[in-house]
Amino acid sequence: MKVIMLKGVSGTGKTTTAEGIIRELRKRGYTVGSIKEIHFEAFTMETEGSNTDRHKKAGAHPVTARGLSETDIMFDHTLDIDRLLDYYDQDYVVIEGDSGANCPVIITGKTEEQLAEQVNSLTIAVSGVISNKRSSWRGLPVISGLTDIGRLVDLIEEKTPERMPNYSSDCCTACGTDCRGLTERILKGTASRSECVLKGQDVQLYVNGNEIPMVPFVKSVVRSVSKAMVGELDGYEEGAEIVIKFRS
Amino acid sequence: MKVIMLKGVSGTGKTTTAEGIIRELRKRGYTVGSIKEIHFEAFTMETEGSNTDRHKKAGAHPVTARGLSETDIMFDHTLDIDRLLDYYDQDYVVIEGDSGANCPVIITGKTEEQLAEQVNSLTIAVSGVISNKRSSWRGLPVISGLTDIGRLVDLIEEKTPERMPNYSSDCCTACGTDCRGLTERILKGTASRSECVLKGQDVQLYVNGNEIPMVPFVKSVVRSVSKAMVGELDGYEEGAEIVIKFRS
Repeated sequence: MKVIMLKGVSGTGKTTTAEGIIRELRKRGYTVGSIKEIHFEAFTMETEGSNTDRHKKAGAHPVTARGLSETDIMFDHTLDIDRLLDYYDQDYVVIEGDSGANCPVIITGKTEEQLAEQVNSLTIAVSGVISNKRSSWRGLPVISGLTDIGRLVDLIEEKTPERMPNYSSDCCTACGTDCRGLTERILKGTASRSECVLKGQDVQLYVNGNEIPMVPFVKSVVRSVSKAMVGELDGYEEGAEIVIKFRS
Repeated sequence: MKVIMLKGVSGTGKTTTAEGIIRELRKRGYTVGSIKEIHFEAFTMETEGSNTDRHKKAGAHPVTARGLSETDIMFDHTLDIDRLLDYYDQDYVVIEGDSGANCPVIITGKTEEQLAEQVNSLTIAVSGVISNKRSSWRGLPVISGLTDIGRLVDLIEEKTPERMPNYSSDCCTACGTDCRGLTERILKGTASRSECVLKGQDVQLYVNGNEIPMVPFVKSVVRSVSKAMVGELDGYEEGAEIVIKFRS
């Protein structure tokens, strides 16, 4: 799964660019999930006094409304962005708004001042209203989501690594830096996704939902033994994702 | 995780009983999630033209609204009840409305005719409006959610097995019947949860997301070897849920 984020203040073309990216990725055959950051204090999708609201007030969490043409799972707080991304398994997730995710960023703005407020070390391109005025800014490509969406999505396809973990340097610096630092290096082309020893696509171990870091040698042992153990069972497929779950 | 369902037409005390059960389970220290079935054709939590609606119409699925005091994950169809339950990890999930889940059922009604329409082989109790008029019906206890919630929740605690799988007899009859049949037997006291060899709380193996059935001997080998392999690692805890994930 790959994650891409759009950052920019209201009125700079953020939603329009998000729509364009989603539509173009779908056209290219990818499955796409999305997340919209809402920084409006009073935002709620719930209706006071509805049955789901009564469940919530009685202490249920989460509460789901399972309707005939939609299903809505409602959590009563801002879900941590990495916990939220765990609910997704699409090819791409497009995040509109600054969520703190560790992923490549496209910034939108009307003015250079607005871009200067949004730009960070994970920014790979500029889009939005300003993109009809210029073709580059501070060395970043400026690409319109309205007239040049194909080129914007080409860049996303080229640059976006498999979903990165998001630990601070207190938790892990096995690659020589923290998770954000490694993403910066991958985007610059000075490191590769496989340098992350913590959460590659190879072997993961969870204890009560928390991922346990393993050095490469231990990972290799866990993978070899697990594969030997289950490889003879009916239903096993070479190349498939294997999950073994038990209570110790 | 344990699952309990309430069934009954509108106006028979279903939501009130659900609230009472949720509140009482929380009082007893359990975490509780809930699901409300909505059979109203036009139901939607989305607002036409909102940013999340624009994401959806561009082809994103699911779409999440991540606000300051709630997070709502929206799917564009009725999620299969077992797929939906996979998103939950609370001690209990209370389902209000007939969802097709394979779990004990409490029916609500105003009249015996209404009860007769709702009762099925998984029913463990009667509640709702009728419960101020009588104390049993067709051998089932009739317990008020308003005046006797403690006794209703005692019964839920006593009867509800760990979440049951929900396969038809085409998929598995390893216990001698299908999943629903085994739940009926457990509720009658003529079988135990451990007779389910497919999806106990002991060992599960998934290949590309599909659970692979294992006979008890193979399960036992997989558990012993897995435990031996990871038991020495930092972060391992006795009694914890262990997940090993890799690509073969």
